[in-house]
Amino acid sequence: MAKKIAILNGPNLNLLGNREGDIYGNIGLAEIEAACADECARFDFELEFLQTNSEGELVTLIQQAGAACDGLVINPAAYTHTSVAIHDAIRAIAIPTIEVHLSNIYAREEFRHKSFVSPVATGTICGLGPTGYILAIGALATQIPE
Amino acid sequence: MAKKIAILNGPNLNLLGNREGDIYGNIGLAEIEAACADECARFDFELEFLQTNSEGELVTLIQQAGAACDGLVINPAAYTHTSVAIHDAIRAIAIPTIEVHLSNIYAREEFRHKSFVSPVATGTICGLGPTGYILAIGALATQIPE
Amino acid sequence: MAKKIAILNGPNLNLLGNREGDIYGNIGLAEIEAACADECARFDFELEFLQTNSEGELVTLIQQAGAACDGLVINPAAYTHTSVAIHDAIRAIAIPTIEVHLSNIYAREEFRHKSFVSPVATGTICGLGPTGYILAIGALATQIPE
Amino acid sequence: MAKKIAILNGPNLNLLGNREGDIYGNIGLAEIEAACADECARFDFELEFLQTNSEGELVTLIQQAGAACDGLVINPAAYTHTSVAIHDAIRAIAIPTIEVHLSNIYAREEFRHKSFVSPVATGTICGLGPTGYILAIGALATQIPE
Amino acid sequence: MAKKIAILNGPNLNLLGNREGDIYGNIGLAEIEAACADECARFDFELEFLQTNSEGELVTLIQQAGAACDGLVINPAAYTHTSVAIHDAIRAIAIPTIEVHLSNIYAREEFRHKSFVSPVATGTICGLGPTGYILAIGALATQIPE
Amino acid sequence: MAKKIAILNGPNLNLLGNREGDIYGNIGLAEIEAACADECARFDFELEFLQTNSEGELVTLIQQAGAACDGLVINPAAYTHTSVAIHDAIRAIAIPTIEVHLSNIYAREEFRHKSFVSPVATGTICGLGPTGYILAIGALATQIPE
Amino acid sequence: MAKKIAILNGPNLNLLGNREGDIYGNIGLAEIEAACADECARFDFELEFLQTNSEGELVTLIQQAGAACDGLVINPAAYTHTSVAIHDAIRAIAIPTIEVHLSNIYAREEFRHKSFVSPVATGTICGLGPTGYILAIGALATQIPE
Amino acid sequence: MAKKIAILNGPNLNLLGNREGDIYGNIGLAEIEAACADECARFDFELEFLQTNSEGELVTLIQQAGAACDGLVINPAAYTHTSVAIHDAIRAIAIPTIEVHLSNIYAREEFRHKSFVSPVATGTICGLGPTGYILAIGALATQIPE
Amino acid sequence: MAKKIAILNGPNLNLLGNREGDIYGNIGLAEIEAACADECARFDFELEFLQTNSEGELVTLIQQAGAACDGLVINPAAYTHTSVAIHDAIRAIAIPTIEVHLSNIYAREEFRHKSFVSPVATGTICGLGPTGYILAIGALATQIPE
Amino acid sequence: MAKKIAILNGPNLNLLGNREGDIYGNIGLAEIEAACADECARFDFELEFLQTNSEGELVTLIQQAGAACDGLVINPAAYTHTSVAIHDAIRAIAIPTIEVHLSNIYAREEFRHKSFVSPVATGTICGLGPTGYILAIGALATQIPE
Amino acid sequence: MAKKIAILNGPNLNLLGNREGDIYGNIGLAEIEAACADECARFDFELEFLQTNSEGELVTLIQQAGAACDGLVINPAAYTHTSVAIHDAIRAIAIPTIEVHLSNIYAREEFRHKSFVSPVATGTICGLGPTGYILAIGALATQIPE
Amino acid sequence: MAKKIAILNGPNLNLLGNREGDIYGNIGLAEIEAACADECARFDFELEFLQTNSEGELVTLIQQAGAACDGLVINPAAYTHTSVAIHDAIRAIAIPTIEVHLSNIYAREEFRHKSFVSPVATGTICGLGPTGYILAIGALATQIPE
Repeated sequence: MAKKIAILNGPNLNLLGNREGDIYGNIGLAEIEAACADECARFDFELEFLQTNSEGELVTLIQQAGAACDGLVINPAAYTHTSVAIHDAIRAIAIPTIEVHLSNIYAREEFRHKSFVSPVATGTICGLGPTGYILAIGALATQIPE
Repeated sequence: MAKKIAILNGPNLNLLGNREGDIYGNIGLAEIEAACADECARFDFELEFLQTNSEGELVTLIQQAGAACDGLVINPAAYTHTSVAIHDAIRAIAIPTIEVHLSNIYAREEFRHKSFVSPVATGTICGLGPTGYILAIGALATQIPE
Repeated sequence: MAKKIAILNGPNLNLLGNREGDIYGNIGLAEIEAACADECARFDFELEFLQTNSEGELVTLIQQAGAACDGLVINPAAYTHTSVAIHDAIRAIAIPTIEVHLSNIYAREEFRHKSFVSPVATGTICGLGPTGYILAIGALATQIPE
Repeated sequence: MAKKIAILNGPNLNLLGNREGDIYGNIGLAEIEAACADECARFDFELEFLQTNSEGELVTLIQQAGAACDGLVINPAAYTHTSVAIHDAIRAIAIPTIEVHLSNIYAREEFRHKSFVSPVATGTICGLGPTGYILAIGALATQIPE
Repeated sequence: MAKKIAILNGPNLNLLGNREGDIYGNIGLAEIEAACADECARFDFELEFLQTNSEGELVTLIQQAGAACDGLVINPAAYTHTSVAIHDAIRAIAIPTIEVHLSNIYAREEFRHKSFVSPVATGTICGLGPTGYILAIGALATQIPE
Repeated sequence: MAKKIAILNGPNLNLLGNREGDIYGNIGLAEIEAACADECARFDFELEFLQTNSEGELVTLIQQAGAACDGLVINPAAYTHTSVAIHDAIRAIAIPTIEVHLSNIYAREEFRHKSFVSPVATGTICGLGPTGYILAIGALATQIPE
Repeated sequence: MAKKIAILNGPNLNLLGNREGDIYGNIGLAEIEAACADECARFDFELEFLQTNSEGELVTLIQQAGAACDGLVINPAAYTHTSVAIHDAIRAIAIPTIEVHLSNIYAREEFRHKSFVSPVATGTICGLGPTGYILAIGALATQIPE
Repeated sequence: MAKKIAILNGPNLNLLGNREGDIYGNIGLAEIEAACADECARFDFELEFLQTNSEGELVTLIQQAGAACDGLVINPAAYTHTSVAIHDAIRAIAIPTIEVHLSNIYAREEFRHKSFVSPVATGTICGLGPTGYILAIGALATQIPE
Repeated sequence: MAKKIAILNGPNLNLLGNREGDIYGNIGLAEIEAACADECARFDFELEFLQTNSEGELVTLIQQAGAACDGLVINPAAYTHTSVAIHDAIRAIAIPTIEVHLSNIYAREEFRHKSFVSPVATGTICGLGPTGYILAIGALATQIPE
Repeated sequence: MAKKIAILNGPNLNLLGNREGDIYGNIGLAEIEAACADECARFDFELEFLQTNSEGELVTLIQQAGAACDGLVINPAAYTHTSVAIHDAIRAIAIPTIEVHLSNIYAREEFRHKSFVSPVATGTICGLGPTGYILAIGALATQIPE
Repeated sequence: MAKKIAILNGPNLNLLGNREGDIYGNIGLAEIEAACADECARFDFELEFLQTNSEGELVTLIQQAGAACDGLVINPAAYTHTSVAIHDAIRAIAIPTIEVHLSNIYAREEFRHKSFVSPVATGTICGLGPTGYILAIGALATQIPE
Repeated sequence: MAKKIAILNGPNLNLLGNREGDIYGNIGLAEIEAACADECARFDFELEFLQTNSEGELVTLIQQAGAACDGLVINPAAYTHTSVAIHDAIRAIAIPTIEVHLSNIYAREEFRHKSFVSPVATGTICGLGPTGYILAIGALATQIPE
């Protein structure tokens, strides 16, 4: 049976392509979703691709992914650095989870060097732009048990 | 006239009983609500028992409890460690407030040792599992003025 | 054409006038809105005046202001000290932004001395009570390009 | 057979009722002992209630409780914040241990926010005045195995 | 009777307009004084406008303003971040005091994020360039008792 | 009626005159007691002069001084830097208390720069050798109410 | 013309497969090299795969890769956390560089949370075991200019 | 031959008696000078009593005291906490130096707990109000060699 | 003439063999004393072997050892990490002193990584279980002058 | 036309040769000035050589050097470690500036390891005694544009 | 069969006996090797005794010892305080490892108080000069399984 | 007889002239060596000029310079900030040692502000580009005894 994965995007990622092109590039979130859909097709993954500005909603979406999906890719954006609630939600679910960041958070402000998500993610891919999402889907393919 | 109390639960507590049994035990939130209802009956307290994953909604619920209830029990879960907004909401209301944690947060990760809620709570009960809720109701019984 | 500005208010500011008068004064948010409307009339500004307890909603409102308005006044309240998401949202928009605090946050608890908003605001006005909003509108008048 | 519990009190608690009423209340240690005796009677607990100003003696009393009692309530007072020896003693014994503080230590000076006892206690009850002792006895009732 | 206010300027502000235009703008201190004089005329304020490179002299000028004026605007420049003496002088006087910074000190080096003046000022206006002085005069108009 | 004062000495001060003469001088504790007795005679003070190596006993002696004396001079030696219990004991008593140190603790190791006693003492005299005790008695003479 | 990439491995990675299987897995470095060679074949990359225990030699190998290769994958192992020399070497070369870690360094000891390499790498892939190397080769394929 | 001592007073001490009576008392600097003159007469000391708001001038006065006097009493006020220059000046002179503070600096804000003067003073007297000056003169009497 | 050495043991070491076998091993303090007595016989050392839970008593025992013995072995247990008084006592005595820890304190909690005893001990032996005592006696044999 | 340079000396340097010879050597400031004059002659530099104990005056002298000279050598002495005002003054001028320290500030107390001047100086020469001034003049010779 | 042990020495230990006799003593490394050989003879240990200035070579030697020896004594000298690579190498091998330091590193500069080796060593012997090596061999004798 | 000096260069300095011209300039190491040779000729110094990427080799070269040369100039590059081994090597040799940095390390990243070499160097020259080497040779000329 086909596996299902969720790709969840945090606050301000709906602005991608419009804001600060030097940091985040010029590709919008819809284009990333399309590329992810293509990559999922390669692995026969069903894809749920969502964005929210709300920490609480992100917690809920993680819980739902934990119940309904076989793997999770998450770009928690700003909540990466402040959210214990998201840390707890990821820890509570039992599916492989890949953390993705478009920009290299370790080359930016000090307060972006701390991730509450990294310690509970299976792995992290950072600084590779939209390619990071594609690699994360590939990573899930090796992490989701048959 | 019967007093009314609110018991508010923060993010991921809806998963209780399903996640990480070694830390949080095997009892679900519905069972805790039932036990609280029984204890409230002993004191003739009317009970409002709610859960939310959203920090902002928790702020609103605290404000509503401050307007409509005589006492508050709150388990802010992950927001305990990060939310100044909840700190401010509790400080703004005038009713006795007991902070409850199921697990012993001081025996866990460093980032769980800081509570923004403790300094504005009337008191704190921590590490005693669901019993903590029951004791908190008893504590309110001694704190709510006639 | 008339310019449009947004004035956004963060968590617990809906309680203004009711809570902790020694810190926040006795004037409610509706009265502040009225005074702001008067001041906006002086500059022929159209005014959007909103309050929310939710960090995610505040992010969304900032994004909408960035798209629809010529200037922004924001009192992020408790989220000032904890929200990278709001920092990112303000950085992503291209309109002049004035941060306002009713109380002098630097004369209060240590954890209120850090603002994630100040580094991305055009300027900050702090400790002057409701007058701060009025001054902020005047400041916008000098910052918004013709 | 009746269970036996110890309630141990640390330095300066012998002054209770005489010193700093705004922080510690006006009830003396003898009154607290009497109330504890009543509560113990409810659970058919035999009670040992002691106070000492000496860290070393407190270590010895904890060791003795570990050997002779079924549960321990401890208010380590000032030694809470400085004593690794008491931490080690509690860790060395095998009985349920409830830490109690009369005042809300998290609403006081910074140096009272650190407890060496919390990480090794079963649970903590803080800020509820003498009621905290009563609740702790109730907590022990749920923690002591039959 | 007409009120009198002092506007005091700290070290290196005599260079304004000549140095680092990208941070401090191209307007010189004399131009700012002229604009302040105009604004004072609106409120019928008598104006004393002074600059010094010396911390000790700034302390003396604050003391003199405390004795002879009804309000104070101060831009302590570099001494903002290092001077307990200025902190003490402002605390010792009984008149409303507005701290002004031309640049956004919170968007600059870490050592400029700390202000010894903010906790003792009535309010702070920061990052708005020469407009900050004008707003500060307006703020004093609301703070000086009749 | 003659006033009574206590002079309490902490750990290792019984070795005075024998150890580390370059730091503590060559005068023994008995000689200091004799000099204090002479100075007390000048003010008609009855003197209790004691030394102990035990933190708990020092707490008890402070409590007893609070009950039986009109003033206290205390050299807490090493406990200065580590004892919250002594801090609490001094805070609990209502008599003027002068903290004395023979050596200049601020010219020694970093860990001696922190005093838990200073914030609750009336005043502190440090670095003046045995003369410090004599000055402390003189200080008490101005602090003890008639 | 075929591109050439280097994959450099730091100290103790020669032990892979033999040490601490729970952290690093059971696959040896030779097997990883073989899998990398296969993946390079997919992209028609010429591969240089090396390991050294020496920081200075790693610096030299990075310099040589910068001169002779089109892309670099580096697993600096323990030197990740301590080497400014490797940071400088990577910064000095002009080719895309992907940092790889087999284990999730953010879920391990505090001293492994700091990477001197991340700020100068193009991107980082962490916690995905040998798969990380494969993904890094894919990442280089998108980063190396035609 | 009569000895000569200097008593130097730092910034804002000229306001004594007028400002913040709860912290500094109601006695002015002239009254303190008079009391010091009386005490100096007891020891046949010639007295130089000066105040300045300027750090640089205080450095110069210390240098002059080092050249012309046999002992020094200094109340550096706010410069206590920030001045390495005063630290260096005191270290450079060869006469006994007593540091005096009217208020208990260790019971006030954190930034007043650090003294750059204490490590280079012979001794420190703190928290005893104007009496501190009198005791300091007595201390000099025991420190100045015949 | 035969040399005399003291071996002093701090708090909770009386529980050895009973508590936390994985950390402290299964050998009791009496067995260690017996092994030490045998080793002392090898060097013709007279042995004093003592244990106490009290910091103050440990200070007194160190002072007595300093007066009556030729060498000291001390396992200060929990007081290692908190006691300046023991630091001072060891510094005050003139005999070689070896600090011993059964467990590897540097592989345990952060708060056990700091030893107040190490800087004043002649040497330290750590993590070798009861063997550490035996080695310490051998070390003293090379440190005690003829 | 001959170039002009200023050499500015901070607090307590007027005492050179008299104080603490082991740290600062036995050569007085006049001798250093003479040697600098000789070296300036070699490069045909006109020399202004000044000393002040005042931070504010040093700021003014830097500003004047910026206006009238082609290069600056500054030994800010104690103000090195505390003065943001001097940092700002140097940043505001456009001439090459060499920071000189007679002693090796990095081999002394911790508080001398921080220089507010180094980040804005062209270069720094430290620990070489009066030779440092001579080298600094040579350095200016390579930095001042023709 | 005879056991084999390695004794590995880090950077600058080849200078022993020549440098800083007050810290490291006057005995050279060859003499220490000779004494170790004698002690090994007592236990019938075959000895490999090596020194290197290179961190990478030390890593390699540890790996080789792990493969070829039954026990390891290591004095990592300066690398103690900075090398995660050596930490990892020791953790990767399965033989008992004793860390030795000639001087008391805890009585020296702050940066020598941190050991990356201690947490992964079986035990540590510190401050006892060349005797430490001898004791370490004895310790290995109790740690190497038959 | 002619004196001999060594000039040692640390990691990545072999890339000089090729990398990051805005920080390190466009002059290669060979050109610097040539200029140093010229300057050495002025003082009749024999010159040894070497570069290595290896920390261990740098330690060895320092030891050899200590044995064979009369003075040392060292640019430790990245090892400046991390190497205790180089600190120890310089401390162990008895010849004058000048630390040189091409760029102003105090105007760069925080982690470059710490030098392990400065406290053990005779003096430091920083931020003056290749001129720094030339000045360092001149400095050695004043430091090497006849």
